[in-house]
Amino acid sequence: MGTSGKSQKKVSPPQLIIFIFLLLILIGTILLRFPVSSNSNTITWIDALFTATSAVCVNGLVVINTGSSFSTFGQVVIMILIQIGGLGFMTLGVMIAILLGRKIGLRQQLILQETTQASSRDGLTKLCLYIFMIAFIFELVATIILTLRWVGEMGLQKASYYALFHSVSAFNNAGFSLWPDSLSNYLDDPVVNLTIITLFIFGGLGYIVIVELFKKRDWKKFSLHTKVVLVTSGLLTICGFIVLLLLENWNPTTFANLTMGEKIAAAFFQSTTPRSAGFNTIDIGNMLSSSQLIIIILMFIGASSGGTGGGIKTNTFFVLILATLNTFRGGGPIHVFKRKIGTETVMRALAVVVSSLTCVFIVALLLTITENMLEEHFLEVLFEATSAFSTTGLSMGLTSELTSLGKIIVTITMFIGRLGPLTLAYALAKKKNSTKIGYPEDQVLIG
Amino acid sequence: MGTSGKSQKKVSPPQLIIFIFLLLILIGTILLRFPVSSNSNTITWIDALFTATSAVCVNGLVVINTGSSFSTFGQVVIMILIQIGGLGFMTLGVMIAILLGRKIGLRQQLILQETTQASSRDGLTKLCLYIFMIAFIFELVATIILTLRWVGEMGLQKASYYALFHSVSAFNNAGFSLWPDSLSNYLDDPVVNLTIITLFIFGGLGYIVIVELFKKRDWKKFSLHTKVVLVTSGLLTICGFIVLLLLENWNPTTFANLTMGEKIAAAFFQSTTPRSAGFNTIDIGNMLSSSQLIIIILMFIGASSGGTGGGIKTNTFFVLILATLNTFRGGGPIHVFKRKIGTETVMRALAVVVSSLTCVFIVALLLTITENMLEEHFLEVLFEATSAFSTTGLSMGLTSELTSLGKIIVTITMFIGRLGPLTLAYALAKKKNSTKIGYPEDQVLIG
Ligand SMILES: [K+]
Ligand SMILES: [K+]
Repeated sequence: MGTSGKSQKKVSPPQLIIFIFLLLILIGTILLRFPVSSNSNTITWIDALFTATSAVCVNGLVVINTGSSFSTFGQVVIMILIQIGGLGFMTLGVMIAILLGRKIGLRQQLILQETTQASSRDGLTKLCLYIFMIAFIFELVATIILTLRWVGEMGLQKASYYALFHSVSAFNNAGFSLWPDSLSNYLDDPVVNLTIITLFIFGGLGYIVIVELFKKRDWKKFSLHTKVVLVTSGLLTICGFIVLLLLENWNPTTFANLTMGEKIAAAFFQSTTPRSAGFNTIDIGNMLSSSQLIIIILMFIGASSGGTGGGIKTNTFFVLILATLNTFRGGGPIHVFKRKIGTETVMRALAVVVSSLTCVFIVALLLTITENMLEEHFLEVLFEATSAFSTTGLSMGLTSELTSLGKIIVTITMFIGRLGPLTLAYALAKKKNSTKIGYPEDQVLIG
Repeated sequence: MGTSGKSQKKVSPPQLIIFIFLLLILIGTILLRFPVSSNSNTITWIDALFTATSAVCVNGLVVINTGSSFSTFGQVVIMILIQIGGLGFMTLGVMIAILLGRKIGLRQQLILQETTQASSRDGLTKLCLYIFMIAFIFELVATIILTLRWVGEMGLQKASYYALFHSVSAFNNAGFSLWPDSLSNYLDDPVVNLTIITLFIFGGLGYIVIVELFKKRDWKKFSLHTKVVLVTSGLLTICGFIVLLLLENWNPTTFANLTMGEKIAAAFFQSTTPRSAGFNTIDIGNMLSSSQLIIIILMFIGASSGGTGGGIKTNTFFVLILATLNTFRGGGPIHVFKRKIGTETVMRALAVVVSSLTCVFIVALLLTITENMLEEHFLEVLFEATSAFSTTGLSMGLTSELTSLGKIIVTITMFIGRLGPLTLAYALAKKKNSTKIGYPEDQVLIG
């Protein structure tokens, strides 16, 4: 984002992004609706729309069992939608700049220039290809590893297909799985765990962080953005891991009967997957409500900007916390890692979190009404709304029971959540009014 | 708040505020623990602490039935704690300024000067007395009205006592009632409804708004703060009223069997009471979960700064929404009512909402653990946490079932919620570090 500039043309970058995503979803819906996409009965339009949106928006919520109800053709369509949707979104800022033949917004440009010296069109094209290459290398290596892991279990053809599907799904933080219980069968399998986790973590860090990690390889040389993303992602993972391990340790329906090694693996997987991946090795519905609440918060924060994941983003969260602590310490300029964070950045973070919270609460409210839920299931509804908005795709089990109206609400939420409130607002916004009168500043009490 | 200044003495105003409140709670706890305070069995220390905190913090959550378990002496203690806690908090900024013999913080001072020309110590004392006078007039008139309403029902002595107790409780937004089902018996009684609602609405608007309403009586002359409070409070009430009326209209356990007039009265009462009052004329636990979620949001927003209510405050909420919309429209200075809202104001609003959200979520999480709640009751827990933090005191029924640990958590939450995150942060904060090095500004992606 940050692509709104002075040279306003007929179609703004945010409008173009929305158009492309709607087109992808339309094509996906039609393809998945074809009889050839299903194993037995052709799926309904609404389920095709839901699945296509979930795939293009790399969400992972499913109303139809991906592995058993879709044919191999249907599954390949889903996989391609995931790859285009995920990698496309990741490189969107760069690609839009190339497509429109002009520089991208100030914010990304500054970081990009510093990182890659790629401000010219040629430089941007190179950068884009570089990102694609890294993504494909990640997916290729992972496919090979997973094929080797699964070949004994299911033969070469099926193993390589499953490996490819799950690698694409993981790097793009899509969370689609060909098993109905996601990766629960591989709860204690180090190869599957580490491969999948590595993929979705790297996919979620964003291209600026990935490029810097591969090109600079030195903390001191990293940009502020990269430092912020790495620190926040790391802290969230560590905190999530410890809390989930402590909470679930004695839960008989999840951790209680596992060995210590399995517990650690499961806690680690479940603390990283809310950063938009959406796979799971434990049935989320069986976890304690306190753990589910933690996962809701982790999902809401999500992954990092410029990546395949969703949520308000780790970097946005960091800025919010930093600004809050700064105000508590008496205000003034916000400093971190020997750099200053500008007011405009904080304002954008505020706008993102307020609109995201509003969105999640409205969706939860609507689902509470349409699904005729009693208060007993509110956590499930809040979980579903957050998961849809943050493109995480984890579920406590509500998705498969959704009414048609509920499916439509979740579909729209996945779309809004993927593009983000800022993109949508900029797409709808009229030209910036630069003739504001300078009214005098006045006071409003706070808190 | 906003009372931290340059002339840092040994005890800062926020520290003084905390000390006074702790002292009040201690005295209240001891008084309520005396056998003379109870009707039959002496109450436990923890219940005495809970009740004293709830009264001083004008919360209204109760673990002990106020009307039947406390003696008249105990009830009078509660009433006095409410009056000191509520009216004291309302005039805190002014009183601290008088006590410490120096001007109060910039923000309040600017509004106060504009409103009352009361920046001198004498002026402040006059202002303080003026506020007390208004409060007592409100409570006196209401007591007379309610006495006349109830005299036929229960005789003069009981009627006047009940009238006084509920008037004090209402103006101070305390929500304590001598009936176990609050004001449910008077659901369709216009006298009781209008008297109580008028009291808690005026109490919740804050002294600046009240003073301006009484002294200026002209919209154009109102300060920005007053305009913001009136507009936000009005809009919240109208939206809450319409949504609750629509949602509950067909609910057989609440509105379905009422007449249209009763429905309107009940919807109006239940849409205003979350602005921290805490009385109810409908059993909140019987409402739809969607209505309960709406009430949670209204409670979280709460009343207005400088009043007897709690929550993040309508004015804080207004600034957040305004800043968000402004960013969506492309950023720049934030204008409203022909005035500019400063960056510092927005930063404070951000700090308040982030820390308040964090607090409510942590409390909900802790209660989920201590109360051994299954996911089925999460809405109840979230409701309780929000009600405790926002000093509203409404409950879906969890309060009476709290474990000892749960009672302690709720007690601490009521205290934190009443004083507010900013006051607590300022009390803990060290002297502001004014030797910050001017680091260069750098970019972090957002959203
Ligand atoms: K996902
Ligand atoms: K209250």
